[in-house]
Amino acid sequence: MALINENYLKLKAGYLFPEIGRRVGKFAADNPGKKIIRMGIGDVTQPLTPTILKAFHEGVEEMGHAVTFKGYGPEQGYEFLRKAIAEKAYQAYGVDISADDIIVSDGSKCDTGNIQEVFGNENKIAICDPVYPVYADTTVMSGKTGDCQENGYYKGIIYMPCTAENGFIPELPSERPDLIFLCFPNNPTGTVAGRKELEKWVKYAREQKSIILFDAAYEAFITGDNIPHSIYEIEGAKEVAIEFRSFSKTAGFTGTRCAFTVIPEELVAYDSEGNAHSVKKLWLRRHTTKFNGVSYPVQKAAAAVYSEEGQKEVKQVIRYYMENARIMRESLAEAGFIVYGGENAPYIWVKTKNNTKSWDFFDQLLTGVNVVGTPGSGFGPAGEGYFRFSAFADRESVLEAMVRIKTMK
Amino acid sequence: MALINENYLKLKAGYLFPEIGRRVGKFAADNPGKKIIRMGIGDVTQPLTPTILKAFHEGVEEMGHAVTFKGYGPEQGYEFLRKAIAEKAYQAYGVDISADDIIVSDGSKCDTGNIQEVFGNENKIAICDPVYPVYADTTVMSGKTGDCQENGYYKGIIYMPCTAENGFIPELPSERPDLIFLCFPNNPTGTVAGRKELEKWVKYAREQKSIILFDAAYEAFITGDNIPHSIYEIEGAKEVAIEFRSFSKTAGFTGTRCAFTVIPEELVAYDSEGNAHSVKKLWLRRHTTKFNGVSYPVQKAAAAVYSEEGQKEVKQVIRYYMENARIMRESLAEAGFIVYGGENAPYIWVKTKNNTKSWDFFDQLLTGVNVVGTPGSGFGPAGEGYFRFSAFADRESVLEAMVRIKTMK
Repeated sequence: MALINENYLKLKAGYLFPEIGRRVGKFAADNPGKKIIRMGIGDVTQPLTPTILKAFHEGVEEMGHAVTFKGYGPEQGYEFLRKAIAEKAYQAYGVDISADDIIVSDGSKCDTGNIQEVFGNENKIAICDPVYPVYADTTVMSGKTGDCQENGYYKGIIYMPCTAENGFIPELPSERPDLIFLCFPNNPTGTVAGRKELEKWVKYAREQKSIILFDAAYEAFITGDNIPHSIYEIEGAKEVAIEFRSFSKTAGFTGTRCAFTVIPEELVAYDSEGNAHSVKKLWLRRHTTKFNGVSYPVQKAAAAVYSEEGQKEVKQVIRYYMENARIMRESLAEAGFIVYGGENAPYIWVKTKNNTKSWDFFDQLLTGVNVVGTPGSGFGPAGEGYFRFSAFADRESVLEAMVRIKTMK
Repeated sequence: MALINENYLKLKAGYLFPEIGRRVGKFAADNPGKKIIRMGIGDVTQPLTPTILKAFHEGVEEMGHAVTFKGYGPEQGYEFLRKAIAEKAYQAYGVDISADDIIVSDGSKCDTGNIQEVFGNENKIAICDPVYPVYADTTVMSGKTGDCQENGYYKGIIYMPCTAENGFIPELPSERPDLIFLCFPNNPTGTVAGRKELEKWVKYAREQKSIILFDAAYEAFITGDNIPHSIYEIEGAKEVAIEFRSFSKTAGFTGTRCAFTVIPEELVAYDSEGNAHSVKKLWLRRHTTKFNGVSYPVQKAAAAVYSEEGQKEVKQVIRYYMENARIMRESLAEAGFIVYGGENAPYIWVKTKNNTKSWDFFDQLLTGVNVVGTPGSGFGPAGEGYFRFSAFADRESVLEAMVRIKTMK
């Protein structure tokens, strides 16, 4: 008799974004005349830039001719892309990461979920609260947790509350974690960790022989000086940190699909007898067995992001989104909300008024002014009473949404 | 202290194809003047056809303009593609599969590996021997097995030998499996299962409440009449079978990346209390949490495979490969080898002469006549003394390789 993985039964209903999709879909069907402005899912709206598009077409054209056709590529990505990443995203900033440390994939969602497979189920995992739901959900699926409790926390996960009181930067946990998910610039709170904060975490991980799973999907949105773009800017991080980056938000690749994981040679985890094993080697074993590489034309397009013209273009698009963020911060503050984030991240984290529950505010916004955002409680219990707006809409929609929100009572 | 998943330590050294790559790479580096003909990895060589290429370019171009730009798509694939698959690959042949049963992914290697996650580790898995290494390796990684034994078999896996004696079609196992991997047309033996064989398996799975994981990646290569292209042509299969299909070999997508899994609504697996659960629902939960959809332009290209022109073109390419297979069958037989497969599959399965070991024959071929094939033993212990040639090379290389092999002593 075929048996299911019962860990799946522990999962709370509906992953956040499908649930938003369901509610918005129902409202749209019931109200066909209303123009809905979507600032919920963190999805980009601006097209691929000319230089990236040109490379993408060129990659496709190569697939149409026998002499340039590409079949299976290296599972971890073509060297031309891994080299471009290492040189332009790391070495150019004085960070010592080589092409061999880069493993290309089709998304950071996949990578941050799948990475759990190479670690044993005895590991204790620490996550922030609120947090991108994938970290917790995949931890549950992998069997590293107990049931979900009444407070919304899964047994066996170490939660690190991020609140207005601590500036949405987690404190070191009192219980020792083996794997620590950190995400800066942060989704959903839009906050960013300075050098001192990251130094604290690297020191802690080294002391505990823990591994930091560092999600840097939004590093391109950092505008402040002296804020690290990579965990590897911190001395000693190469021995204790895996970094995840993506082209999704950096270059508009949410529908094009490309990302990468950085695992330095020095990074080890242990077997039950205390022997050290290269994590990169384990991840490559998984990657080469369960994945077959990113589409070749997509890799060509991704490499073009690092060309001189490509860099100019994607930075211009990011400035556009960050100008949205500025408008939203100011407008929402004028509308009487307490506002966080949005200065080094494309997310604005808003406290609802009168302690309105997050999903109630979602429904008020949707039915009242036809604007879609993301309920903070969808990211974890400490997100209750908060709401996330993403700055990825086009300018016109942002301005229109802000006008509408100001009319709310 | 971060702990590794110790199941990875049970894995035998090197996944087959990286090991072939290593040996060929070393030989090529040591012998720069030699022209190596590669018939090892089952990788296509013919370019994308004009209709597919045109759709691919159109999809890319849409990504370059705000009005047609696509961000995140549905994780399970766009409806236009799922509908095209359901109608053209199933309903057109009288098989009752709907768009809702189709879940699009970036590869069958990924799907056949990842599917294990939704099933509990108490399940007993049956695989053929020889077999595509991914089934066994991912079973080991997931923790469903014990150590690898001296005979090359992992404890806890039910092996079903496929030999010349049983025509490379497995017999029903004496021990009851919960999950049964079947692949027809078969990789590596090139054999195909007739209707009676598949009826036997579906009946068995229904009796045992087992699930058949049916890998049909090579269905497009079936040339014989009355050979089922889908497991769902068998009555009752929808309740006990998951089918995996891919555009890789069908339409030259090994470097472009698109595949799909079919899970009918009726298919259930059980929890430990005996309650039935929809497997499709579990798989969708995994897919939406750990995957973010296939690149949009790739999905456009895949849909074009089902257009009238697209069908004509891909069938012509397949005829080209199957003509290669015919040449290889005949030439290898003339060279004194006993030859199997190659009539409904792009693989020729050859018995080595004088019981030469598979890897020894690999080295003889590589160093003697600079031809690369795949050692049968790489697919499992029962593959020892066999060798797989793939029919995907271009015609000139096939003819040249056959001439060279005939010169071998």
